[in-house]
Amino acid sequence: MKTVFSPDHALHHPLNELSDGTLVPAVEIPSRADMVLAAVTAAGLGAVVAPDPLDEALLRRVHAPDYVDFLDGFWDRWLAEGRKGAEALPFCFPTRGFSQHVPDHLDGALGHYAFDAGTPVGPGTARAARASASVAASGAALIAGGDKLAFSLCRPPGHHAMPDQFGGYSFFNNAALAAETLRDASAGRVAILDVDYHHGNGTQAIFYDRSDVFFTSIHADPREEYPYFLGHAGETGNGPGEGATLNLPLPKGTLAATWFAALETALAAITRHGAEALVVSLGVDAYEGDPISHFKLASQDFSRLGERLGAIGLPTLYVMEGGYAVEAIGTNVANVLTGHAAALPG
Amino acid sequence: MKTVFSPDHALHHPLNELSDGTLVPAVEIPSRADMVLAAVTAAGLGAVVAPDPLDEALLRRVHAPDYVDFLDGFWDRWLAEGRKGAEALPFCFPTRGFSQHVPDHLDGALGHYAFDAGTPVGPGTARAARASASVAASGAALIAGGDKLAFSLCRPPGHHAMPDQFGGYSFFNNAALAAETLRDASAGRVAILDVDYHHGNGTQAIFYDRSDVFFTSIHADPREEYPYFLGHAGETGNGPGEGATLNLPLPKGTLAATWFAALETALAAITRHGAEALVVSLGVDAYEGDPISHFKLASQDFSRLGERLGAIGLPTLYVMEGGYAVEAIGTNVANVLTGHAAALPG
Repeated sequence: MKTVFSPDHALHHPLNELSDGTLVPAVEIPSRADMVLAAVTAAGLGAVVAPDPLDEALLRRVHAPDYVDFLDGFWDRWLAEGRKGAEALPFCFPTRGFSQHVPDHLDGALGHYAFDAGTPVGPGTARAARASASVAASGAALIAGGDKLAFSLCRPPGHHAMPDQFGGYSFFNNAALAAETLRDASAGRVAILDVDYHHGNGTQAIFYDRSDVFFTSIHADPREEYPYFLGHAGETGNGPGEGATLNLPLPKGTLAATWFAALETALAAITRHGAEALVVSLGVDAYEGDPISHFKLASQDFSRLGERLGAIGLPTLYVMEGGYAVEAIGTNVANVLTGHAAALPG
Repeated sequence: MKTVFSPDHALHHPLNELSDGTLVPAVEIPSRADMVLAAVTAAGLGAVVAPDPLDEALLRRVHAPDYVDFLDGFWDRWLAEGRKGAEALPFCFPTRGFSQHVPDHLDGALGHYAFDAGTPVGPGTARAARASASVAASGAALIAGGDKLAFSLCRPPGHHAMPDQFGGYSFFNNAALAAETLRDASAGRVAILDVDYHHGNGTQAIFYDRSDVFFTSIHADPREEYPYFLGHAGETGNGPGEGATLNLPLPKGTLAATWFAALETALAAITRHGAEALVVSLGVDAYEGDPISHFKLASQDFSRLGERLGAIGLPTLYVMEGGYAVEAIGTNVANVLTGHAAALPG
C-alpha cells in the first residue's frame, strides 16, 4: 500500500482555540501528522508518495467557488487591512433569522463562511488545506487506478467542512473530494464510512441529496458532543439521497463491544448499497486515551477495525481525520492499516 | 422627566471579547452605565427611579420561553459541570445546513441560543439582563401612564437580541419589551427609532411580521459593519409587516449632515405610520470619538437630535443601547435628553 503525504500541512499551525470561555492551546497541530507519518513508516506499510496537483474543478464542484476564493484570498486581505492578530477567528454568524448575503467586511465574510469560532485561519491555512485536499484526491486516484488499499495522510482534517463553511478544524472536505474522485473515475457506487469520534457533518451535508455516495457514521451523539447540530439518527438523506445517509450515534463512554456492533450495522448497510469502493474517514479519537473524546477503544481495537474492514474486500482509501492523543495516534492509525493490509488476499 | 435605573446592571461584567483572532478586554462594561447615570444626574434631568418587577408573561411573549429558561439556568449548569472559566463564550453555531434541535450539551445549547462568540455569559448575566428588561418595561409604563418623556437607562443593551438568540452584548431586547408594553397599554401604534451606530437586528426580527410596531433604523451599512447579516435597505418587513420596517444604512465615515437627512426620512415614515408613541433605541456610538464606530456626530449633534425628536411631539421613551467612548457617552446621552426636554411645551 501507499501513503500519500504532503509536508505542506505544517503551513497550518493554529495557536489557540476557544474552550470554557477562553483561548487555550490548539490541539489540531502539525505534530499530529508527523506522529502518524513516523508510525506508518516504522510499521513498514509501504511507500510514502507526494500528491498530484489538485484538480481545481473537483475542488469547486465539492465546495462553492466563492468559498474557495474567500479562503484563498483571506490572509492577504487580513494583512492588507493591517490586522494585528497572528491568526483570525470568526465571531459573528448568520444563524436563524439572518440573511445570507456575503458581507464586504472581512469579519462579516469570515463569519458567513464559518460555523465555528474555534477554528483559526492563519497565513498558511489555505495552502495547507489545498495540500490536504490534494493528498485525499491523489489517494483516491490510486484506488481508481487499481490499488486495493491506500492511505491519505491528510491534515488539516476535512469531515466537518460544509459545502461553503469551515469549522471543526476542517476547511476542505477531504473525504468528499476522495469520494468524488472515485465517482469521476468509474460508474460504480461509493461508500464513505466515518469512524471519527465526531460526526462528519460536512461530508453528510455534501452528499445529503445524492444516492450515488452512501454516507454512514459511527460517532458520539450530537446531543451531547460536537458538532452538536448534525448527526442525529433521524437524518437519513433527502430527495434522491433518501436512505443514503445512516447515522449511528452512540453515547459518551461507549465501550468497544457496542462500537463494533454499530460497525456491523454500518457494514451491512454499505453492502446493501452496492458500494464498489470505500472511503474511510479515519479519526482515531474513539481511542480511550484521547484528550477531548469519550469512547473507550484500546489500541488493539484499531487493529481489529482494520482487519474487519479488510475482510469485506472493497478497494479502500483511508483519509486521516481527527485524533488528538498525539503520542498514540500514530500507533492507532498504523494498527488500522496493518490490520487491513493483513486481511487482504495475497 | 424620569430616568429608570437599576444598579443590578453591574451583575454583568464581561471580561473579554473576541477581536482580531484573540481575546481583548470587553468594551461593554459597567462603567458605561455609571457614566450615563452621573451625567443625567448632573444635568438635573429629573428623578431617578427604580424599575417595577418584570412582567414574566411579557418577557416570554417577546422572547421564546425556552431561551429565557436557558439563560436563567445557564450559570448553575456551568458550575455544576465544574467548568473553570470565569465566563462562557459560545463557539459552535447551527448555521445554514445544520438542524435546529437544541443539544443537551451545554456548549451546544449555548451555541444554539447565540449568534456571536464575543458576548460573554457570566454569573450575573441573566439577572442583569432581567434588570435591564425591567428598566425598559418600567420606562414604557411611565409613558403609558401619561409621561411625555422618560429614559430607561438599560444595561446590558438589547437591540441585537433576537427572539431566541443573544449576541452583540444583548440578551433581552429592551426596546422590543418597551414597545410591547406600550402596545399592551393602548390601542395605538408604536414606532421604534434606532439611532445606534449598529443595526438593531433583534428588534427588526421581533417585529418583522407585524404592522402595529414600526421599526426604523439609521446605522452603518451591514455590508461593512457589525452585525453584518441584517439591516439592508431591502429588508422592509414580511406578510402583515410588509412596509413596517425601514432601514437607512449609511457608509462608514458618514458626517452629521447626511445622518440628519436620514433622520428626516425616518421621521417622515414614523408620521406616515401613524405612531402614537415613540421608543428610541439610543446608542450614542454614532459619536465621532467612539472607539469601535465610524460615524462623525459631535457632542452638540446629540443635543440637536434630542431637540428634533422633542419637536415631533410624540410621547417618547429613550432606551439606552450602545456607546463605548466611556468618558463621552454620559455627555452625549444627557445632551439628547436635555435637548428633547427643552423642546417640550411648557
